[in-house]
Amino acid sequence: MLSELLLTEINRLNQRTRLPLHRQLYEALRRAILDGKLVAEERLPSSRDLVQDLQLSRNTVVAALNQLTVEGYLISRVGSGTYVNPKVPQPPARQSRQPVRAPDRLSHRGQALSSRFCASELEIQPFTPGIADFSAFPVALWQRLQNKHWRMTYPDMLDYSSAGGHAPLRRAITDYLRVFRSVPVDMEQVIITSGTQESLELCSQLLADQGDTVWLEDPAYWGAGKAFMANGLNLHPVPVDDQGIAPHPRDNSTPPQLIYVTPSHQYPTGAVMSLARRHQILSLARQHGAWVLEDDYDSEFRFSGPPISSLAGLDTEERVLYLGSFSKVLYPGLKLGYMVVPKGLASALKRTHYDLNRPGQIPVQAALAEFIDMGHFASALRKARQSYAQRRHCLLAALQPCLSDSAYITGAEQGLHLCLRLPDAINDKALAQHIGTLGLIVRPLSAYCLKRHDMKGLIIGYGYAPLAEIEHFGPVLAKALAQELAP
Amino acid sequence: MLSELLLTEINRLNQRTRLPLHRQLYEALRRAILDGKLVAEERLPSSRDLVQDLQLSRNTVVAALNQLTVEGYLISRVGSGTYVNPKVPQPPARQSRQPVRAPDRLSHRGQALSSRFCASELEIQPFTPGIADFSAFPVALWQRLQNKHWRMTYPDMLDYSSAGGHAPLRRAITDYLRVFRSVPVDMEQVIITSGTQESLELCSQLLADQGDTVWLEDPAYWGAGKAFMANGLNLHPVPVDDQGIAPHPRDNSTPPQLIYVTPSHQYPTGAVMSLARRHQILSLARQHGAWVLEDDYDSEFRFSGPPISSLAGLDTEERVLYLGSFSKVLYPGLKLGYMVVPKGLASALKRTHYDLNRPGQIPVQAALAEFIDMGHFASALRKARQSYAQRRHCLLAALQPCLSDSAYITGAEQGLHLCLRLPDAINDKALAQHIGTLGLIVRPLSAYCLKRHDMKGLIIGYGYAPLAEIEHFGPVLAKALAQELAP
Repeated sequence: MLSELLLTEINRLNQRTRLPLHRQLYEALRRAILDGKLVAEERLPSSRDLVQDLQLSRNTVVAALNQLTVEGYLISRVGSGTYVNPKVPQPPARQSRQPVRAPDRLSHRGQALSSRFCASELEIQPFTPGIADFSAFPVALWQRLQNKHWRMTYPDMLDYSSAGGHAPLRRAITDYLRVFRSVPVDMEQVIITSGTQESLELCSQLLADQGDTVWLEDPAYWGAGKAFMANGLNLHPVPVDDQGIAPHPRDNSTPPQLIYVTPSHQYPTGAVMSLARRHQILSLARQHGAWVLEDDYDSEFRFSGPPISSLAGLDTEERVLYLGSFSKVLYPGLKLGYMVVPKGLASALKRTHYDLNRPGQIPVQAALAEFIDMGHFASALRKARQSYAQRRHCLLAALQPCLSDSAYITGAEQGLHLCLRLPDAINDKALAQHIGTLGLIVRPLSAYCLKRHDMKGLIIGYGYAPLAEIEHFGPVLAKALAQELAP
Repeated sequence: MLSELLLTEINRLNQRTRLPLHRQLYEALRRAILDGKLVAEERLPSSRDLVQDLQLSRNTVVAALNQLTVEGYLISRVGSGTYVNPKVPQPPARQSRQPVRAPDRLSHRGQALSSRFCASELEIQPFTPGIADFSAFPVALWQRLQNKHWRMTYPDMLDYSSAGGHAPLRRAITDYLRVFRSVPVDMEQVIITSGTQESLELCSQLLADQGDTVWLEDPAYWGAGKAFMANGLNLHPVPVDDQGIAPHPRDNSTPPQLIYVTPSHQYPTGAVMSLARRHQILSLARQHGAWVLEDDYDSEFRFSGPPISSLAGLDTEERVLYLGSFSKVLYPGLKLGYMVVPKGLASALKRTHYDLNRPGQIPVQAALAEFIDMGHFASALRKARQSYAQRRHCLLAALQPCLSDSAYITGAEQGLHLCLRLPDAINDKALAQHIGTLGLIVRPLSAYCLKRHDMKGLIIGYGYAPLAEIEHFGPVLAKALAQELAP
């Protein structure tokens, strides 16, 4: 009877999404537990029985059961079998689609933070932007490196890391940036953080006061907006055009303390900031005595067009702080990123970062340093770039038939997503929702807009799904688009 | 010639501190490099030669060289030998004694944050408070557990963890708190953070607005003050007496939005908050509509006196957020802590924490969950408690001869430090500095005071140094104290 239930659920899923089989079985079992069809302490059939009943491979069944056990839905009792955990966890929030009401008991700041730009409730599916394919990460090699450094661990490595981060990792990042990004860096300027969110928070707290203004791109990366809001800054959106952020003279009447930009690949439109615009930003920063925060979140993946020097590389006056992250090339859960800061700020920032955040994870930092030094990082990058180039090509080909003068692609030269601009008349939020019912996640461009109302489109990622899925789902997506765009 | 230099340095260190030999050699070599006595690219004698010249054991020499290589002072070239790294790192900030000037280019908030309460510049030595002996941590077991979870890693485990943290770890913490701390918890109330600093930051941002007041203990844990300052809160110090924080009716004219307390073992005085005072705090919180942040930073180590229920355990109105950390029982660099929050706040806090901080490290969270579930945590705790009890006993015995009516110990029932109260006439900062010249670190009580000027004393830790060091250095400390206290 359980197998019937599961088969029905799997069939239903299969029609909608064509997930890999073990994910389907996982999902079917998980729903059965959450819906109470499988109750607490109920014993599951043996994996052998499931293999037979469902006509699935043993690997598929074991993978699904393992994941459910690790997540706490099932418990396995030695010699007795696998049971539904009486303490079944709530489904993780990122898989829930119900918006959470911000309780009145939060502060005003808390209410604002908990109600705007909440991307966390979304499931990951083909085309979800902002996510790399970390399934290709060389886990075995990584584990070997970690083990090596754990074996060499002397007690000090269990302590907090020193201010600025583990020296070998800072040195490895210095070398990497010099070679690959032409960012001239002295190791003393590098600060290891737990990622871009922490970097942004540190800059907000140490370089700006409550009520100071930050210029940020409109549309923008919501995570940055959130970090600035949390730290009491006044958000001043500056519209983006096809050359990146485009400050108008009237913006000068709201002078910035910080200017936050994504020049290599504007998030989300994908615009590459022109050289002229880069010089304009640096000159405005000088004029206002502002700091420029250059978030170079996916510059590792450039597919066409000439490379453009980073803002940090053009900066002659120590006004730019360069923010990098390892979550796109390695894996997001690693929680390591870095900042390159002007020399005059380095020592105070490192010290205060240490006091406020107490960086740790020295063995992981040491493993990462070796991963970079030994060339594994460059090689992972090369492989990833090749693989993403294929996916990008495949997605572009699938979308080709839908394109026209009013429906066109921007920002596909680089990164892990592209932006499909759509006519103003289209309700991009409804369209994204409709596409969601097909089991595909894309994001409406208008949802990233802070003040403007003149941008419609879809943000489509090609980083997460393997080529086969893009081959399969690209046409599904294109068909949905064609229907919407049909005259 | 190098060996002469090293021997001189080692002798000098030896007279001052009696560090273990490999630490002495490490320190001697490090100083030689930093002082330029060993220059870039200089080749070191082979470890065999060093063994002979310095008459040290091979283990000692290899341990010192290894550590210097890992930290980047030396590089070893296969088949050629060990060299001074041309890119020698700056000494880590926590080992430098020079205060760093906050550059004028920081914001006001940044200047305040970088100039107050900077503990990071201090070396770790016997008696440094706030530090546990993580050298006893079962590294091999931990590595085995991590490996196990890395081997089972399915790609999703490389992603950010779900909102609130990895479910098995939240469940393990729930069980632990229920049994060991009598904190009644539902798993949904637990939020995994990267430690107490992140927990405090999240509470500041979501439960208070800029300019809101936080009551905090005077003297206080400086890290908490810093987190509140960074988030724009107005610090209102409330004096501590021997029953913990002691609000006066006049404090009510500065009504709090948050009340931050360390009731189990006030930091730094060590006072245990009386039951009456606990009820008073809860009633004041109700009266002001404030949240209570209960930082239970070292409640795991209780040596005498009756256990007192946590504030969270007494709370009947969902006003208390309970903050815990793993850095004292496991190791600081782990960077995992947790909050237990009222049910009505749980969902908004988890979601917004996810959006702001993107928690990760699922394999480490999974390993920690198993570490707790399998009883390793309880057993590590038991062992640590036993070992700290001996150190505490030994330190108390050594200090006994210095005690009098005006020089007495508080806060020794629990935790990893005690507070030696001294007469008002004593300059505790100068005394701590003098003791520093003996190679021992203790902290002056007055340095933790925010507004009051009536507390003198020394904060003396017994968590970091092994029993043998306390046996050796306890009398050294006592002698210095006796000299100062002599009439």
